This record gives sequence, structure tokens and C-alpha cells, in this order.
Amino acid sequence: MTPDSHDLLNACAGRLPELQSRRLMLYAGANLPSSAAVNAYSPALSAYPAMGPPFFKEQPETDLVSELEMRASHTAMRLFNAAWAEVRLPSCTLANLAIYHAFCRPGDRILAPAAEHGGHLSQRRAGTPQLAGLQVEDLPFDTADCQLDTTRTVELIESTKPKLVVLGRSVMLKADDIAPVVRAAKAAGAKTLFDASHVLGLIAGGVYPNPFDTGVDLISSSTYKTLPGRPQGLVLGRSAQDGQTLRGMLDARMLANYDAGRLPSLLLTLEEALADGGVYASAIVSNSAALHGALKAAGLPVIGAEAGETHTHQLLLPLAADVDPRDTMLALQTHGILIGTCVDPSRPGHSALRLGTQFITRQGMGTGKMQEVAQLLAQVLRRAPCGRLCVDPGVKPARMRESVERLVQQVKNGY
Amino acid sequence: MTPDSHDLLNACAGRLPELQSRRLMLYAGANLPSSAAVNAYSPALSAYPAMGPPFFKEQPETDLVSELEMRASHTAMRLFNAAWAEVRLPSCTLANLAIYHAFCRPGDRILAPAAEHGGHLSQRRAGTPQLAGLQVEDLPFDTADCQLDTTRTVELIESTKPKLVVLGRSVMLKADDIAPVVRAAKAAGAKTLFDASHVLGLIAGGVYPNPFDTGVDLISSSTYKTLPGRPQGLVLGRSAQDGQTLRGMLDARMLANYDAGRLPSLLLTLEEALADGGVYASAIVSNSAALHGALKAAGLPVIGAEAGETHTHQLLLPLAADVDPRDTMLALQTHGILIGTCVDPSRPGHSALRLGTQFITRQGMGTGKMQEVAQLLAQVLRRAPCGRLCVDPGVKPARMRESVERLVQQVKNGY
Repeated sequence: MTPDSHDLLNACAGRLPELQSRRLMLYAGANLPSSAAVNAYSPALSAYPAMGPPFFKEQPETDLVSELEMRASHTAMRLFNAAWAEVRLPSCTLANLAIYHAFCRPGDRILAPAAEHGGHLSQRRAGTPQLAGLQVEDLPFDTADCQLDTTRTVELIESTKPKLVVLGRSVMLKADDIAPVVRAAKAAGAKTLFDASHVLGLIAGGVYPNPFDTGVDLISSSTYKTLPGRPQGLVLGRSAQDGQTLRGMLDARMLANYDAGRLPSLLLTLEEALADGGVYASAIVSNSAALHGALKAAGLPVIGAEAGETHTHQLLLPLAADVDPRDTMLALQTHGILIGTCVDPSRPGHSALRLGTQFITRQGMGTGKMQEVAQLLAQVLRRAPCGRLCVDPGVKPARMRESVERLVQQVKNGY
Repeated sequence: MTPDSHDLLNACAGRLPELQSRRLMLYAGANLPSSAAVNAYSPALSAYPAMGPPFFKEQPETDLVSELEMRASHTAMRLFNAAWAEVRLPSCTLANLAIYHAFCRPGDRILAPAAEHGGHLSQRRAGTPQLAGLQVEDLPFDTADCQLDTTRTVELIESTKPKLVVLGRSVMLKADDIAPVVRAAKAAGAKTLFDASHVLGLIAGGVYPNPFDTGVDLISSSTYKTLPGRPQGLVLGRSAQDGQTLRGMLDARMLANYDAGRLPSLLLTLEEALADGGVYASAIVSNSAALHGALKAAGLPVIGAEAGETHTHQLLLPLAADVDPRDTMLALQTHGILIGTCVDPSRPGHSALRLGTQFITRQGMGTGKMQEVAQLLAQVLRRAPCGRLCVDPGVKPARMRESVERLVQQVKNGY
């Protein structure tokens, strides 16, 4: 090993305790698997491919991989009430691409969330659907409520007869009313895909509506946001025929090899979610509600679920039009606060900080700690004249980092 | 954890010693990373995405990931004499798909190896290129020599003016003469892609010709065959502009997230290959030559490099037309011998066992052991009346497994 690499690999090894003990981790798409799940990685299962369906694979002595595929699938099916689960894909972006290829043809029209409403690059116009040659039309959006515009979406489905409707976004503050959309899609002969990447753990825990309950055909997801797993993709479905269609395409054209060594980790993460019974998910949404209240009480503008609505893990803090979102993110980083940026779906052309409570909840912070979290944010953020937020340049990073570490240490020590 | 899963995860944990000590592992697409590389997996780097170019990423505190991307890329560039390296893709199949999307448009014609000549599903007609809407024409092949038919390929390039020519296959017994093909492609305005998945470690070690030396534009590869790494994809290129084109497409449409925690492992594997200086690769091809001779001496028909040609890690054992290749593979598995099957590219409509020496070489077997390996194979395989091979049903698995374990144990003990 070169000396430079030695230092770099040491920094990598030190990153886990740093992230766990010295940062206020509010990035909405972050989580860590249990140590058991991390340690379950099996290099011997990654030593050679295991191509094809379980127990009919092309390579010798792959029954262990086949059994893991089946077991992880069954656990996912049980957790999400699905008819089948595909556990081999490396990311949700590639899961979405696989779905576009399996269920659409080049030139087909699909409806998907727009970038300005929090649509992910794997969903939106000029993103992943374009690789499959699809024509993407933006889903109508209610900026006032920061939700899918159900009425106009139903009208659009009826008038355009799309092949597929993609639901779910990167910015999800509360549940959309998708039932009428799914009914309209069925009536128009369109499939529905719900990209649950952000809320999968909330669905697992029963605090976010399971899209299958309203008749959605397919759920795609990543596995490392509100579900605390290693990163990979997951596809779930309600019809056995759809599962065969997807797998036929994957085996013939897209998934020659994959890293089967991560399957034991996935199995453990899914079993942990089953055993948890919704405790973690409930704590996440309670923390979001408490943090929402505490941030408001501290004088900060917040965009999130309102009274009578259930929170997700996400809240938005609107940024002033004249600050650069990335600079704001980097300034917060110097204070030890990790948080992402996004479009402000309530205000076209504006940006926001998107925070998530799933990581700090997993660290053990309860609703009682949300006031301290809000206070820390209120110390570094201030209202610009427009009423939206910017970073206060006068705050000393060294002092903020000290406060951040104190808070996280208290949680680690059980206070 | 459920009791069933407990047993399954125990079996996974036990698989590594089993594979290392109780099997004769001759599958040609298998390897194991060093323990250092396995242990370098960094879960904290997998906790949230790191989207976009190094040091300009969308997420906070991603400089460590950026530095790893740069360092792993630079090490790969040095090892393979490339102008750039893309280290984020999860598999070579998806690397090939990315290349099709970045450098071709739907409807474009490409030339690629046919299935019956050992073309991989990510290369061939009806495989991955079809996802990108490409028209695939089979590359001409010289069945007598088991090599690309250079003359007819040059003619086909001149007459059809393809957009891309895909070189390299899953069955590669020796190096093709690709220089005239690359020249013809350049003259016709076609890009050339060499899929080095099988021979990447041999190229790294200087015993297989580096495709960049003959002017190839792009190399794609997996990282766990003759290069002993964790499974993922790798793309290397000779023109900076091509690197920008590929990355622009990846960042906008295909690679939102990836598992950055595996980058330290990749970096270590690449540095180990640099430090090794070709010793491992030379040992592989020497073992292939020795095994080829020993198998012939034991009376078995073998297809491989001939006198004056350099072997790869692969040799083929032709199977009788009336035996099922998969049944043969499974029968050998009961004897503790892991080996794959493939088309016999020298004999249309026939199959072969495809064996590789890269795993046993890494276990420490030298040329002196190849006679024992050949003897074991000669004990379980016999010539059918047609002169091709089938498994001898009279051999007792228990005895064979004992012989296999004895051989592998000797190597472990340094004999």
C-alpha cells in the first residue's frame, strides 16, 4: 500500500465513529445498517456469479445464493405484503430503469414527478426514463400543499392514456392521496409504480400508507434511507406475472452478475424491520412532528406536514433566493451539521434545506431531544429580510461543533 | 433472527473456508479479494449518496468519497495505461450498458461476439445492447483457431460502417489479433470497446496484450475474475473526451447512488496488482500451459492455446453431444470440483467445460501441481465413443472429495 493510500484508508476506517459521534446527521437519505448486517457480508458468495433463477443457476454450487435470494424475497414480501420481491438490483435508479425496460417500450408515454416538485433523476424528464426511450410528462402538483395534485393527475391519465404512472418523489413531506390516481391508471390500462426509496422504512413500520393497499402494481426502493440497510435496490410487486416479466428481462439482458455477498445483510435488515414491529418508524414520525414544532417555536420557517397529517422523516427549511444552496450546505458542514438541499416544491424557482429525522432517531434521540436539535439549527440559521433562511456568518464553527458533539454524546450515553 | 435464517447465515459464514479448503475451484470467472481488501469495506461511506463529480458532489461531507474515486481511478489508469477510469459502476454488464448509452443512439449498428463464439449476454444480440435499442451484428469468428476472424471482421467493418465494435468474450483461450480491426474501426469512424472482464488481471500483469496498445478506445471489465477483487464494474478509456461523455450520461441518468463503501476495497485490489508486478498473472498462464499438457498426457481432449501461443487462464474440455452440460457441471460438483460450462466455439452446436486456473493459482498451486489436477479430472471424466467427454458415473463422490481436499490441503500447508 502506498503511504498516501494508507492515510486515506485510515480516514475511511475512522469515518464511522466520526459520523456516529461527531456529526448532527440530518441528511434525509442516510442511514447505517446494524453491525450484524454489516458483518454478514459474505465474500465467498461474491467469488463468482450466480446467474438465472434460484436453483436453476448457470454456475456450480450456487444453492446457498439461491436460498438467500428466496429467503430475502420472502421476508420482503411478508414485510410489505407483496406477491413477489426482486432483491438482486444494485440501486433503485437501476431498479427503475429495469422497470421501464420490462413494462414499457421505446416511445411509450409515462407520467412522472417533475424535478421542481422533488422528482428524482431516475423518475423525471431527461433522467433515467430517457435511457429506455420513454416520453415523460410531468405529474400535476399542488404547490400549496406540497402534494401530488390528485384531481389533475386523474384528468391527465384519462386524457393521455400513459403506459406507466410513477409515484413517490425525493421530497415527500406527507402521503399523497394516490388511490384515485391508481384507480384511473387501472381504468386507462396503465401500470403504477411507487418509488418508495425515501419512505420504505415508514411503510415497513406501518406509519406511511402501503401503496399496495391502494392497488399500486409495483414498488421500487433503495434500502438505506428510512430502512436502515446497506445500499441496494429492491422491487416489489402485486402480480406474479409482473414478477416473471421483470425477471425474464433481468436474466436475459441486465443482471448477468451481481454482488450476492450482500444478500445476508439484506436478509438481516429485513428481519430486523419485521421484528421491530414499527417502533423505529413511529419514533421517526414523532420526532419529525416534534422537530417541526420546535423549529417553529425557535422562529424558523418550516415546510412539513400540518395538523392532522402524518409526517414522514422529512422537513424543509426554505432558503433565501439570494443564497447558494450548495454554499449553505457546505457552511452547515463546517458546523458539524450534515443536511442536504433540494428544490422548494411550494415555491417554484426557490430552494430549501431538506432534513430527515431517521438517522438521529436511530441514534436514540427521542422527541425530548428535538428542541435541542432545533436550537442548534436556530443558532446557525437566520431569517433573511424575505423571511426565508440563510446561514449566520457570525457563528463560530468550533463552538457549534462542540455543541453538536455534546448533544450526540449525551444520546450515546443514554441521556 | 429466525432459526431458519440463523442456520442459513451460519452456512454463509462457513462458505469461505469451504471454498478455500474443500473444493477444487476451476470456475473460470471466480476469485477472492485479499482479506485486507474485504475488510476495507467502509459502511460509513455507504450511509448516503455521493452524487456527481468528485469534489462537486450534491451531498455534504463527501470529500473522502471523492478522494477515493480519484485515487482508485488514478491507480487503475496507472495499472492499465489509461487516460481515465470510471470506478463507480456495479458490474461490467451495466458498464457495457452505460457505454452503449453514452456512445450510441437507438438504431445504431454495432458488431459484437455471437453467443455461439462465447459472446456474453452483455455484448451479444438479444442481450444488453437491445436495451439501448442497438442493431447487433455478429462478429466473424474462426472456429478452427477459436479466435476472432480478423480478415472478415475488417471487411465487415468496411462494408457496414458500425458505430461500435465490441471485442473480448466470455470464452478467451488466447489473444485475438485485434490491431487490424481497431485500425479499420478508426478508419470507419467506429469506436472500439474491449470487454476485458476475463483477462483484466492478465493485462494488469503484462501477460495478455493491453488493448490500449493497439488503439482500442474503451475497456470495460468486471473486477473479480483474473483480477482478484470484489465484484463491480470498471471502465477505462484513452480519450479524455470519452470520459466526460460517459460521466455526463452516468451523472444525469444512470448513477444516482452507488455503494461507495466498496471503493477502499477496489483501491487495495488495484494497488496489490501494481505491487505484484505480474507474478500472479505469469503464474496463471504457466499453470494453464502446464495443465493443458498434463490433461493431454492424461488422455483428455483439450481446447486451448497451441505451441507458440500464450495461454489465458482458460481451457476448454469438449463435452459429448449427448450429455447435458448442466448435469455434467452438477455431477462434478458432487465430486467437489467446481467448473462451468460454455458453448464450444470450435464446434457449432456443441458444449464444453470451461475451466480457469486463476483461483487455484492464487491458492498457491504451481505448475508442479497441475499434473495432480489433471489426474483428478481424468478420474471423473471419460471419453465417450465420439472422443468427447462425459462424467464417469462409476466414480464414488466420497473418494473424489477426499482426493480434492487432500490436494488443496497440501497447497495450504505449503507442499
